[in-house]
Amino acid sequence: MKILFIGDVVGSPGRDMVQDYLPKLKEKYRPTVTIINGENAASGKGITEKIYKQFLEWGAQVVTMGNHTWDKKEIFEFIDDAKYMIRPANFPENNPGKGIVYLNVNGTEIAVINMQGRTFLPVIDDPFQKMDLLIEEAKQRTNIIFVDFHGEATSEKQAMGWYVDGRVSAIVGTHTHTQTADERILPGGTAYISDVGMTGPYDGILGVNREAVMKRFLTSMPVRFEITKEGRTQLNGFVVSIDKNSGKATKVERIMINEDHPFFG
Amino acid sequence: MKILFIGDVVGSPGRDMVQDYLPKLKEKYRPTVTIINGENAASGKGITEKIYKQFLEWGAQVVTMGNHTWDKKEIFEFIDDAKYMIRPANFPENNPGKGIVYLNVNGTEIAVINMQGRTFLPVIDDPFQKMDLLIEEAKQRTNIIFVDFHGEATSEKQAMGWYVDGRVSAIVGTHTHTQTADERILPGGTAYISDVGMTGPYDGILGVNREAVMKRFLTSMPVRFEITKEGRTQLNGFVVSIDKNSGKATKVERIMINEDHPFFG
Amino acid sequence: MKILFIGDVVGSPGRDMVQDYLPKLKEKYRPTVTIINGENAASGKGITEKIYKQFLEWGAQVVTMGNHTWDKKEIFEFIDDAKYMIRPANFPENNPGKGIVYLNVNGTEIAVINMQGRTFLPVIDDPFQKMDLLIEEAKQRTNIIFVDFHGEATSEKQAMGWYVDGRVSAIVGTHTHTQTADERILPGGTAYISDVGMTGPYDGILGVNREAVMKRFLTSMPVRFEITKEGRTQLNGFVVSIDKNSGKATKVERIMINEDHPFFG
Amino acid sequence: MKILFIGDVVGSPGRDMVQDYLPKLKEKYRPTVTIINGENAASGKGITEKIYKQFLEWGAQVVTMGNHTWDKKEIFEFIDDAKYMIRPANFPENNPGKGIVYLNVNGTEIAVINMQGRTFLPVIDDPFQKMDLLIEEAKQRTNIIFVDFHGEATSEKQAMGWYVDGRVSAIVGTHTHTQTADERILPGGTAYISDVGMTGPYDGILGVNREAVMKRFLTSMPVRFEITKEGRTQLNGFVVSIDKNSGKATKVERIMINEDHPFFG
Ligand SMILES: [Fe+2]
Ligand SMILES: [Fe+2]
Ligand SMILES: [Fe+2]
Ligand SMILES: [Fe+2]
Ligand SMILES: [Fe+2]
Ligand SMILES: [Fe+2]
Ligand SMILES: [Fe+2]
Ligand SMILES: [Fe+2]
Repeated sequence: MKILFIGDVVGSPGRDMVQDYLPKLKEKYRPTVTIINGENAASGKGITEKIYKQFLEWGAQVVTMGNHTWDKKEIFEFIDDAKYMIRPANFPENNPGKGIVYLNVNGTEIAVINMQGRTFLPVIDDPFQKMDLLIEEAKQRTNIIFVDFHGEATSEKQAMGWYVDGRVSAIVGTHTHTQTADERILPGGTAYISDVGMTGPYDGILGVNREAVMKRFLTSMPVRFEITKEGRTQLNGFVVSIDKNSGKATKVERIMINEDHPFFG
Repeated sequence: MKILFIGDVVGSPGRDMVQDYLPKLKEKYRPTVTIINGENAASGKGITEKIYKQFLEWGAQVVTMGNHTWDKKEIFEFIDDAKYMIRPANFPENNPGKGIVYLNVNGTEIAVINMQGRTFLPVIDDPFQKMDLLIEEAKQRTNIIFVDFHGEATSEKQAMGWYVDGRVSAIVGTHTHTQTADERILPGGTAYISDVGMTGPYDGILGVNREAVMKRFLTSMPVRFEITKEGRTQLNGFVVSIDKNSGKATKVERIMINEDHPFFG
Repeated sequence: MKILFIGDVVGSPGRDMVQDYLPKLKEKYRPTVTIINGENAASGKGITEKIYKQFLEWGAQVVTMGNHTWDKKEIFEFIDDAKYMIRPANFPENNPGKGIVYLNVNGTEIAVINMQGRTFLPVIDDPFQKMDLLIEEAKQRTNIIFVDFHGEATSEKQAMGWYVDGRVSAIVGTHTHTQTADERILPGGTAYISDVGMTGPYDGILGVNREAVMKRFLTSMPVRFEITKEGRTQLNGFVVSIDKNSGKATKVERIMINEDHPFFG
Repeated sequence: MKILFIGDVVGSPGRDMVQDYLPKLKEKYRPTVTIINGENAASGKGITEKIYKQFLEWGAQVVTMGNHTWDKKEIFEFIDDAKYMIRPANFPENNPGKGIVYLNVNGTEIAVINMQGRTFLPVIDDPFQKMDLLIEEAKQRTNIIFVDFHGEATSEKQAMGWYVDGRVSAIVGTHTHTQTADERILPGGTAYISDVGMTGPYDGILGVNREAVMKRFLTSMPVRFEITKEGRTQLNGFVVSIDKNSGKATKVERIMINEDHPFFG
C-alpha cells in the first residue's frame, strides 16, 4: 500500500495546485491514503472549515497542521468536529483538537500522527516523550503509522527519525517549505525525509511575497507578509510504499512539480 | 566553466570521502575551481592547518568556513597565512581572517565569498549590507562570483538568493548538513540551492554520533558530541556551470554519494 | 545638574501617571532635562504624534523608543519631524528617524542616545560599535551624554555599562519593564542601572492584562495582549546628578511610585 | 517565621561572602530556614559535593539549582544522596535528582520547590503545569511553600508569580544575577521578587570577568568565562516573613550587601 503526502499548502496558489494535480497524482501513484499539510492553506496562515472540507472533497483523507494551527480564529469553532484534521499532538493538553487519527481503509487500519519540534519554535511539550506514548497507543491497533513531524531544525528532525526508526512506517518533516533530498529508508524500516517542502508559489520566499521578506531582512522593520498570487506555482510531495503486514517502508519517492520539473503522469 | 562545491566536511569520515572521491569528481565534472566547506573538518569542530593544507593538496582551491570557524584554537595562528581560506565576511571587522578571495585560473578571475546568516545563529553584522559591498568590490574585477551562504533558516537563505539574483553566478547554502532538493537557476541567472548538505557519516545526525544527539533531546542534559567514526559515509556536493563572459549560471547539478546513491563516474 | 528619566510608559494608565506625577517630580528633583521612554505609550505598542507632543507639553525634552518603535503605522508620517524623538541608533541605516539628539539648555549642551541590545531581541546592527561612533561624535560637543540602552539580557546591559564607563554620564536600561536594584556609579564615573522599570498598570504583567499573558504561557496559543485600564498604577524612574564640567555622575536615585511605595514630595 | 534566601552564589568570591555574612544575617533576621541557590557555586558552573556540604555546614538547610545543574560532572555521583539539594522540578522525568524537598523544623513542615522557566532558556517541561502538580502535593502536608523560580524573562517570572499567588508563601526569581526592586506581597498573600540577584564579584558582569564578557559581545568570538577572583564582592538576598498557620507572607525585604550598600547588623 502507498501513502501520498502533500507538503505545506500555501494560500490559493497552493490550493489550486492541489485541485489540479491531486487527481493526476492519485492516478499515477494509486495511494491508499492521501494526507495534506494545511497549516498555511488560508492565505498563508491557518486554515478555514471551507478549505478543510475542500481538501477532503478533492481526495485527501487527513489534514495535518503545525505552528500556524490557531492563526485563523474560526478554527476554534470547527476543530472539534473536524474528524480528519490533526494538529501537533504535543501542544499542551488544554488545547482543543487532537494529534492522532485512525483511518480504516478496506479493513486496514492506519494511524496518522502530527507532532511539532521545539528547536527554534515556540515552547510546547516534549515531542519525544509524546511520540513514545502515541506509538504505544497506535501499535495496539495497527503497524501502519505515518508521522508528520513539523519542525525547523534538521538536527531535531533527524534525531526524531532515528528515534522512531523501526517503530513507525514513515516520518516526514514539514515547516521549512523547502524540500530536502535526503529521503531514505532507515535501517529499521522507517521511511524518512527531513522536509517534504511546500505547495504554492514557485517564485516567492517560502511562498510569501519576496519583496516583503527581503524588506524584512534588509530593514528589520515590520512588514506585511502576503502570498504571491500571480506567477508560477509548485507542488511538493512524498510517496511511501509500505508493507501492509509488517508496516515497514519498502520504497520512498519525492514529488516535485514546477516549471523546472514538469509532471509526467 | 564549472565550479565544484563540497558541503560541510565532518571529521575524519568526511575527510576520507573527500580524499577518495575528489579525484573521481574532478575527472567526471572537470571543474575549473573546487571549493570545500571545512568548518567541521577537525573532529566536527573547526579546522587545523594540516587539514586545510590537505584539502588544497587533494585538489581544492578554496576552503570556506562558518559558525565553527574559531572552534580549534590553532586557527588564530595560521588564518592570516591561509591565503585560500575564507570565513564569513560579516563577522565583526575586528575578527582575524577575510571573507572574500580572488582566484586567477588561466587568466580568468573568480571571486569566492563566504557569508553567514543571522536567523537562529549568533548575532553578527548584517549579511545583506555586507553582500552589497563585496559584490560591488568583486564586480570591478570579475563577473564570476561564487557565494557560500552559511545559514540555518530557509527563509533567510532564499531571501539572500533572490537578493543577489543576477549579481552573482551562484549562491549555495551550507550549515544544516542536509541537502535540499531545490537547486535551480533563478530568473536573473544565479544558481541557487538552499543547502548543499554534508560530507561525512551517513548514519549519524548531521554527522554526529546519534546516541548522543538523541540523549540531548530526550534529557536536555549536556552530552559530548562526537563524530561517528565507524560505519557508512556520504558526500554531498554541487556543480554549477557558468558562462565565462556573462558570469550567468547555465546548469546546476546536485551531487549525493552514499550507499543509497552510488557514484557513477 | 540633574537628568530625570521615566521608564517605559505603557498605555493610558502610564500616560496618566506621567501627567499626574511629572510636575511633582520636577518640583522635587528640579531636573535640567526630563526624558521619557515612550515605546509602549500608545496602548502598549508604539507611539502616536499626539502622545509624543503631549509628553513634550507635560515637560519632557526627549522621548526615547525601543523594539516597539514601528508598531503604530503613523510613526512613519511624523518621525522625520519629531525633532526630540530618538529611536535605537543601531537600527539599520536605511530606517527612518535618528538615534541621537542634542539639547541646549541655558548654554549647556546635552547629548541623548538611544541604543538597543541584540540578545533575545531582533537582529540589528552592533550596538557596541555604534556606541563608539556616537560617543566620539558627541564628545566633540559635550561631556554630558545620557544613554537609554533598550535591552533584555542583563549580561548585555552590564557589558555595555562597563564598556562606556568613564565615557558617558549615565546609561540606563529599559525594556524589561521591571526596575532593578543595581543602580550605582561605576568606577569611571558613569551612572548605571540595568533597568529603570515601567510606568503604567501595577497589577498587570509588564503592564499587560495578566489573564492574557498567563493564558499564553499556559496554552502556547495566540492571545490578544491588552493594557489593563482599570486598577492600580505605578511610575518607575531614575534621577542622576551630573557634574556639569566633567560630565561625571555624582549621585543616582531610583524612583518607584505605587501603592506599596507612596510618593513623598 | 522567616525564610532567608541567598541569590546565585558565584565561585569562591560568592562562597566567601556566604561564609562571612551568613552568621551575621542569621543573627539579624533569625530565619527558620535558609536557602541558597548554588548553581554557580563551583567556579561559576555547577556545584561540587564539597561545596554543597559546606553550604549546609555554614547554616543553609536547602540548596537550589538552575540551568547550570549538570555543569560539574561529579553532580551525577552525589545528587541522589544530596537530600537537601533540589534542581528544577520541570527537568525531564528521566533526569536524576528531585525538584521538591520537605523540611520539618520544630514540628512545622516547609516545602521548597525549584522550577525553571522556558523563555530564552533550554526547552524543558512546562513549569506552570508542573507547578500545579507540586503545589497540590505540597498542600497535603503544609501551607508553607517556598519557590525558587529560575528564569530569564521578566514576563514569564511575573506570569508565574501571579499564577501561584495565594497558593504559595513566596516565589523568588533567580538566574539573571541582577537584583530587581519589585519585591512585594501580591494580593493573594504571596511574596514575590523577579530576581534576588547574585552573590559574588561586585565588579564583574554577572560575576564573570568583565573583559571576557565584553570581548564576547565585541567580537562574537568564543571566550573563556572565568570568575573574577580579586576585587570587591557582594551578597544579594531576600527575607520573607510568613504567617505560620495561613502560610501567607506578611513582610518582604531585599538584602544587598556591597561597598555601596554596607551591612548593618
Ligand atoms: Fe508551513
Ligand atoms: Fe510551520
Ligand atoms: Fe557545518
Ligand atoms: Fe555551521
Ligand atoms: Fe517597553
Ligand atoms: Fe521594549
Ligand atoms: Fe546563576
Ligand atoms: Fe542560571
